[in-house]
Amino acid sequence: MNVIALAGGVGGAKLADGLQRIVGENLAVVVNTGDDFELHGLRIAPDLDTVMYTLGGVANPETGWGIAGDTFNNLDMISRYGGEDWFRLGDRDLATHLLRTQMLRSGYTLTQATQNLARALGVRASILPMCNEPVMTIVITNAGELAFQEYFVHRRWQPVLKAYRFHGIDKARVTPEITAAFQSAHAIIFCPSNPFVSIEPILNVRGMRDLVQKTRVLKIAVSPIVGGEALKGPAGKMFAELGRAPSAYEVAKIYRGVIDRFVLDRVDEEQARAIKDLGMRVWITDTIMRDELERERLAREICEWVTK
Amino acid sequence: MNVIALAGGVGGAKLADGLQRIVGENLAVVVNTGDDFELHGLRIAPDLDTVMYTLGGVANPETGWGIAGDTFNNLDMISRYGGEDWFRLGDRDLATHLLRTQMLRSGYTLTQATQNLARALGVRASILPMCNEPVMTIVITNAGELAFQEYFVHRRWQPVLKAYRFHGIDKARVTPEITAAFQSAHAIIFCPSNPFVSIEPILNVRGMRDLVQKTRVLKIAVSPIVGGEALKGPAGKMFAELGRAPSAYEVAKIYRGVIDRFVLDRVDEEQARAIKDLGMRVWITDTIMRDELERERLAREICEWVTK
Repeated sequence: MNVIALAGGVGGAKLADGLQRIVGENLAVVVNTGDDFELHGLRIAPDLDTVMYTLGGVANPETGWGIAGDTFNNLDMISRYGGEDWFRLGDRDLATHLLRTQMLRSGYTLTQATQNLARALGVRASILPMCNEPVMTIVITNAGELAFQEYFVHRRWQPVLKAYRFHGIDKARVTPEITAAFQSAHAIIFCPSNPFVSIEPILNVRGMRDLVQKTRVLKIAVSPIVGGEALKGPAGKMFAELGRAPSAYEVAKIYRGVIDRFVLDRVDEEQARAIKDLGMRVWITDTIMRDELERERLAREICEWVTK
Repeated sequence: MNVIALAGGVGGAKLADGLQRIVGENLAVVVNTGDDFELHGLRIAPDLDTVMYTLGGVANPETGWGIAGDTFNNLDMISRYGGEDWFRLGDRDLATHLLRTQMLRSGYTLTQATQNLARALGVRASILPMCNEPVMTIVITNAGELAFQEYFVHRRWQPVLKAYRFHGIDKARVTPEITAAFQSAHAIIFCPSNPFVSIEPILNVRGMRDLVQKTRVLKIAVSPIVGGEALKGPAGKMFAELGRAPSAYEVAKIYRGVIDRFVLDRVDEEQARAIKDLGMRVWITDTIMRDELERERLAREICEWVTK
């Protein structure tokens, strides 16, 4: 079974890892690149790296991002020089950014550069950036317009969100690798990632929404909101600031017309009826992935639900 | 007393450090940049960094290059990715290259970038790259033409040297900062650096030889060859391969017409007569700088000899 997963950072990477454990190289993960940015002249792609490190088995299990056992001596020295040190680039992690940036400068697409790095880490799935063109998620807040990492990491998502946009998205196109993956797909999984700043940029790449809609396979979303809260990151706060209740039901409403099925956590069971009324089938299970076994178990349940 | 030191890597940096201990901010070190190169898209300047780390008190005392206590986790990860790993960039060291490269890209001259980095490390002397333009020392060997670091680090200076040249030197110009330093100089010290690939590129920058000759102050060289051998690096081997005896006397011959005085190690005392016959005054002392006290002692002797 060929599976496509749409993913952002940590939560999405966990489910993608589970799916890789089930379908191996038959998994293609389409990853948000809207929160990519430049630091010290290097192209940093936080979501791509989180997915790659997680699927490569080198992710830091405590943070979800970065590399397990990484050190921060480079960062210490950057600080000593008075350089920008709010984004915690690990010493090992930095190798990814150095080599990626070099490959991009020498003419590789972001897709090709990602493929080379992921292969070296032993990743079996295809990790596909949502596009090769630079796209920059901008959040409009009470503290002004901020690039995503500035908002997310530097300001620790404290500014109040008013709106957001994807700078450069009009020039972004679905890649040939993504088109090919959709042509042979048997299911499309929307991972438990932020619907606004992880999944929406992916869907807004020109050609992507069409590709998702025209691919006649089951489309299943897993809620990133459980018990009224995001498991990680600012999704819950963002829902509230955008005037929506942070709930699985609201997630389902956002995806209405795009997906067929919805995976709901047991704690949100009472929302099942309302979600079904949106025209979706609902699967109720434990969706919190505390360890690798739970990633695999959730992925297996989803794959079995698809083929049943 | 304002002192100018011309220097390459480790040996030069040690004497420059001694001089900084004597004259402080009245020292300007003009540093070879012919062995600069690019790695992972970063501008690496080995001699500049060795001088800067040494004068900043952070140099690795065991190797002479790199930063004390540095780690190599980035390098490990670069290796894992299959990237170029023959040049041992430390994690802390990498901060220098990242920030320098960024400054150069944003329009700083190499001189300005060096000044910013050195100031942050508390260096009191001015560290002045020999020019702002890129110059590349090429060694012509029995293994073909090699960029200097390829010869020096990657091939461990094993190929047999036939000749060398400085690619780009015709476009290099003495910087305003160097001109200003010469205008107020009271002495010019040729540090114990490789005469061929450390000092000669400096002197070959357009305007430099003129500046040295027209500056009417004492010019003193310290031999990098002691007891017929280079203290560090390929100088001895290079002398032999270029058809010269590796001796202090041969060093003096190379500098004849440029310098007035020569500092000779006690072990080479028997060469004093021949060197004097070249028209130079000779100072015989211990020139091997095993620790910081010896750097300071040698620098003090030289400064006192100048003012005597």
